[in-house]
Amino acid sequence: MSNLTREQMVTPIVSVVGKSGVGKTTLLEKLVPEIRRRGYRVAVVKHDVHGFEIDHPGKDTWRYAQAGSDAVVISSPSKLAFIKQTDHDATLGELAQLLGDGFDLILTEGYKQGNAPKVEVHRKEAGPGLLCREAELVALATDEPLDMAVPQYDLDDVVGLADRLQEVFLIDRPASDVRLFVDGTHVSLTPFVSSIIANGIYGMVTTLRGVDDPRRIQLAITFREGGE
Amino acid sequence: MSNLTREQMVTPIVSVVGKSGVGKTTLLEKLVPEIRRRGYRVAVVKHDVHGFEIDHPGKDTWRYAQAGSDAVVISSPSKLAFIKQTDHDATLGELAQLLGDGFDLILTEGYKQGNAPKVEVHRKEAGPGLLCREAELVALATDEPLDMAVPQYDLDDVVGLADRLQEVFLIDRPASDVRLFVDGTHVSLTPFVSSIIANGIYGMVTTLRGVDDPRRIQLAITFREGGE
Repeated sequence: MSNLTREQMVTPIVSVVGKSGVGKTTLLEKLVPEIRRRGYRVAVVKHDVHGFEIDHPGKDTWRYAQAGSDAVVISSPSKLAFIKQTDHDATLGELAQLLGDGFDLILTEGYKQGNAPKVEVHRKEAGPGLLCREAELVALATDEPLDMAVPQYDLDDVVGLADRLQEVFLIDRPASDVRLFVDGTHVSLTPFVSSIIANGIYGMVTTLRGVDDPRRIQLAITFREGGE
Repeated sequence: MSNLTREQMVTPIVSVVGKSGVGKTTLLEKLVPEIRRRGYRVAVVKHDVHGFEIDHPGKDTWRYAQAGSDAVVISSPSKLAFIKQTDHDATLGELAQLLGDGFDLILTEGYKQGNAPKVEVHRKEAGPGLLCREAELVALATDEPLDMAVPQYDLDDVVGLADRLQEVFLIDRPASDVRLFVDGTHVSLTPFVSSIIANGIYGMVTTLRGVDDPRRIQLAITFREGGE
């Protein structure tokens, strides 16, 4: 299954979807520690279509948001929070870019319309039929066997499900990994082009004083009006 | 003063500092809309040395954090929040990297030990003496004139203060701007090296199909064990 990984040069994203009340949050709550136990860094994204309140009237962060800040950050020695006003529902690509490359796996609750591979949570009592087509599914978490060629796990079998995600998304990634965004849009690269860019930039950067054998290079270039 | 800007290739950061109770939050609250009115995108960072609570027991985002997620994001059509566990107080460089290049100016409340240029807020009643050395200051907001060669503005004169910040940090930036992070650390580049890298990458990227005249290129490259 490593072709899935090789196409997807940004941090792998898996969306956990399912009908209302089937236990998506509960499953994620058990899956996260199982994946972390294996040494991977995990981010979870919750899709809230209605809007949410996280900031509180009168607090400084709230005052800065009211004053029109495009973003407010609060930073402490143990936690960091970042609240950003937006005019649209962030796509999975935008979320991956926001999260940067400090994570091995991004799990989302929701985003059934998104283009990430999916784990559907199913319960018999929620009625027949799934939200996803078979081709979108990397696994099913279900309390009844379904007649589909998709690996199926019991709702409690987070070890089995984590094995599956690890095999598909976390093992056997290429030696270098290039993520390119042009004007905010992710540009897919073939492994060949990706390797040319990685080696070219490695060469440029390692000629700089004080840079020895980098493991991670991040570059952001802005060209201004009339610039090259 | 454009030498200040040219050295500082990441988004300019200005720290608003001052003794306790002098009105840093109030000043920022008035300064933010004045800078936004001029068409710039502003992020505000609050430094909280004691830790803060933003998430609430029982909510899904709290459950994911409790389950050990390294980060939790909640995304809605109007707002996006990102809460990340950390083991250290983020530096200004790390904050700039987190915020990315979607902002023209980052204002911080606090970070008097940081290396960003500072605006000190001063009140006569807080007693004589400033927190900052003259060389660190880009401006003073004060209710009494001080005998220093630093531009001084009345506590209510956010227009004057915004003029000063705009002149120093927002006008006359170079035609391209390269931000390079190697293994998480910001690497300063001379304008010459910066321009070589910008042009080299511009060349590589514009040979890709579908990429025409990019204004903004972001690249993240990860080299794995033994690879380059």
